[in-house]
Amino acid sequence: MANDKKLVEQITSMEVDFAKWYTDVVKKADLIDYSSVKGCMIYRPYGYAIWENIQSILDSRFKATGHENVYMPMFIPETLLNKEKDHVEGFAPEVAWVERGGGEPLAERMCVRPTSETLFCEHYANIIRSYRDLPKLYNQWCSVVRWEKNTRPFLRTREFLWQEGHTMHATAEEAEAETLQMLNIYANFCEHDLAMPVVKGPKTESDKFAGAEATYAIEALMHDGKALQAGTSHYFGDGFAKAFDIRYTDKNNELQYPHQTSWGVTTRLIGAIIMTHGDDNGLVLPPAVAPTQLVIVPIAQHKPGVLEKANELKEMLSRDFRVKLDDSDNSAGWKFSEYEMKGVPLRLEIGPRDIENGQCVLVSRHNREKSIVSLENLNETVKAKLEEVRQGMYEKALANRAAHSYDCTSIDEINATLEQKGDGFVYAMWCGEEECEDKVKELTGVGSRCIPFEQRELSDKCVCCGKPAKTLVCWGKAY
Amino acid sequence: MANDKKLVEQITSMEVDFAKWYTDVVKKADLIDYSSVKGCMIYRPYGYAIWENIQSILDSRFKATGHENVYMPMFIPETLLNKEKDHVEGFAPEVAWVERGGGEPLAERMCVRPTSETLFCEHYANIIRSYRDLPKLYNQWCSVVRWEKNTRPFLRTREFLWQEGHTMHATAEEAEAETLQMLNIYANFCEHDLAMPVVKGPKTESDKFAGAEATYAIEALMHDGKALQAGTSHYFGDGFAKAFDIRYTDKNNELQYPHQTSWGVTTRLIGAIIMTHGDDNGLVLPPAVAPTQLVIVPIAQHKPGVLEKANELKEMLSRDFRVKLDDSDNSAGWKFSEYEMKGVPLRLEIGPRDIENGQCVLVSRHNREKSIVSLENLNETVKAKLEEVRQGMYEKALANRAAHSYDCTSIDEINATLEQKGDGFVYAMWCGEEECEDKVKELTGVGSRCIPFEQRELSDKCVCCGKPAKTLVCWGKAY
Repeated sequence: MANDKKLVEQITSMEVDFAKWYTDVVKKADLIDYSSVKGCMIYRPYGYAIWENIQSILDSRFKATGHENVYMPMFIPETLLNKEKDHVEGFAPEVAWVERGGGEPLAERMCVRPTSETLFCEHYANIIRSYRDLPKLYNQWCSVVRWEKNTRPFLRTREFLWQEGHTMHATAEEAEAETLQMLNIYANFCEHDLAMPVVKGPKTESDKFAGAEATYAIEALMHDGKALQAGTSHYFGDGFAKAFDIRYTDKNNELQYPHQTSWGVTTRLIGAIIMTHGDDNGLVLPPAVAPTQLVIVPIAQHKPGVLEKANELKEMLSRDFRVKLDDSDNSAGWKFSEYEMKGVPLRLEIGPRDIENGQCVLVSRHNREKSIVSLENLNETVKAKLEEVRQGMYEKALANRAAHSYDCTSIDEINATLEQKGDGFVYAMWCGEEECEDKVKELTGVGSRCIPFEQRELSDKCVCCGKPAKTLVCWGKAY
Repeated sequence: MANDKKLVEQITSMEVDFAKWYTDVVKKADLIDYSSVKGCMIYRPYGYAIWENIQSILDSRFKATGHENVYMPMFIPETLLNKEKDHVEGFAPEVAWVERGGGEPLAERMCVRPTSETLFCEHYANIIRSYRDLPKLYNQWCSVVRWEKNTRPFLRTREFLWQEGHTMHATAEEAEAETLQMLNIYANFCEHDLAMPVVKGPKTESDKFAGAEATYAIEALMHDGKALQAGTSHYFGDGFAKAFDIRYTDKNNELQYPHQTSWGVTTRLIGAIIMTHGDDNGLVLPPAVAPTQLVIVPIAQHKPGVLEKANELKEMLSRDFRVKLDDSDNSAGWKFSEYEMKGVPLRLEIGPRDIENGQCVLVSRHNREKSIVSLENLNETVKAKLEEVRQGMYEKALANRAAHSYDCTSIDEINATLEQKGDGFVYAMWCGEEECEDKVKELTGVGSRCIPFEQRELSDKCVCCGKPAKTLVCWGKAY
């Protein structure tokens, strides 16, 4: 039987080959599939449902902070893309060009949007006239295209799904506050809802978004010790406003340039979830975004009353949670490993003995702990247990990050630590010179991830050149 | 003042120039804007919010009937598009081609999806093995591109937003039932939620979707007497399954081709709403999809207690409805016309006298009827009033359709009726021959919209050739 075979299909162990483990998980948990469109992927129902849950939570937080959704065209004419110098240099090399439509060559070629700053700016130039029109707080959910050479599901694909916020403000202060507000919304979402600790802070000059004055990032540490940039928020100043001639009349009737931000997260968050929480039995999903939060597995389901009780529990629990009852004729053992592979946070087992005793068994996916609980007030018990799971997942991830965060004061120490303890976040002082940033990467393999808001002084000297240090930098190998 | 000027900006009257009225409304109600991307449009917050409400209602109905969302790549390689003969002939002439990515010419050019049958079929060939894998009930929300020459906001644009359902079934009967189920979900949504009556039925042979065995449509009559196809549902038989070699093993262990459907609605529904319900004061939105269902306009808001009370009502009503309070310093008269232009279904006026009497004024947008209601149980009153508005809008649209639906038994009668009463739905008998279908269009300007499920026998002769009639056809000029 095809079904029994699945039970024994093992995934590669994380320790043996992390990259292979990752691709095994995304395929075997039915998150994605490939197609003949190279470098792109198919989001299967289980994978897309995670994205829908991410969207739903973030969208409500964007709206609660006054943002509105819009939808811009997916194409950008070449002259429009070229309007802001740094921006076009950053993106032109990696776009896909449409040169022919409806059988005819286009008068001007257009790229499929790699990001939509230029379209938003053109629109803002049309609709912003007076201080009364500010702020404009827009967001867009869409897909974008960047012609990557090496692709990996969720982490780097030629087409990916994301949201891009683009806002315009009367003053620099307001725009800077918005930039940090959105960074904090992302960080809170990652830490609380995805149970994934992040380091927050600005990127270095060389790592800024094309056209930005400042780029802030949240950086998460994956299970293999590599860093993953989980979200970015950019402050643009008035550079784009000047390039696109966006001006407003202030209260004194004088023309001013507004100040701009943009911020985004992508489906790469799903990759981050997989590599933060997953284990050798497959996915482990945070309850907030799990398509199924609890799966009911009836034990000895042919015995009288078992399926009836299982269905009754399903109906009751579905009032508050996303619940699945698997009453298929697969064995209980097969079901256990299937829903472990799919990372369902809680499993509920119910058999004849449990029914007799007015109880059931709850098993947490992330630590496989079993508890026997009463069927009385089960919804409240499950609610508390899911919160316990979330908390447990966060603490586990935090402990893993702590075990792979190293304070270093010399290049040799960085190399020795990475050699001995494996990849991780390296904290080391920096003089602020790009030359040293490049040299650290060349000599140790770790690049600057961000300049953490939480600064500590490990020494007063740059880890590379020994000159006076300006800041503590968080370094790491990046996805 | 810019604000006072807006009050007197008139839109073109529907009677004077319907097309101009339409473009005035979409611009002045802030639904859309143009950009330098020709033939595409920007969905502004107010326009996009209508689409979000449409999505939210339909998506929950798709899910309630067992459908799951997926996301396919936006590109289709040329060889994949070419796999089903009729399909490629239908779409190849109107696609946009990507021939270059990341600075290099592509080994094979790819089009931006005009629709995703080919991608779904390729995926289904990968994942369908056994009867246990069926049915597959997938849906996708995305944008598609068709290189139209003449474009109009919402009705026909080069890029548009839609959903496309693609399902696979073990038997023809199941697939046919699915096709009709989805048509009925669309029809019910249009009639109940959008208050827009529709005619349901199959398209004629010549009007079928490229590659389909049968195409069913819902057709709505716009205020100018033209027909608008508001949604379609296709039965594919096993044609695509054969072209893509999708087979499953049935219970007897024999290989079978599955049977397929697809179905979709687009942002053109927003165009349909505008042209069904709108009037010379602007938009009129059905409560189910209106971004703001009720706007509170305080009267004499500088007087003590007025804004406090208005805020209190806003908070109370927001528990059940999408509510906006306009406490700006614009005049009440300006606000009245602003929210009429934007089609807000209900306006609530509250001033010092009302507060004294424990009452407020409700004004329905669609018929401008005023009623004075008690502040006691206001949420229930508003709920009932919104239902009354919905019902009233539906009846008004139905009456308009009845006044512009004509039974005709000769070509001359069609021409005379259209001449005298204006454009509308023409009901006339048809022999079933494509030649007559073409000739009716040539001689009268109306084309076949669909073969209504609700058949009547107006005569036993074809309106065109006089030979025995097979069916009653609903004819009309189409958007």
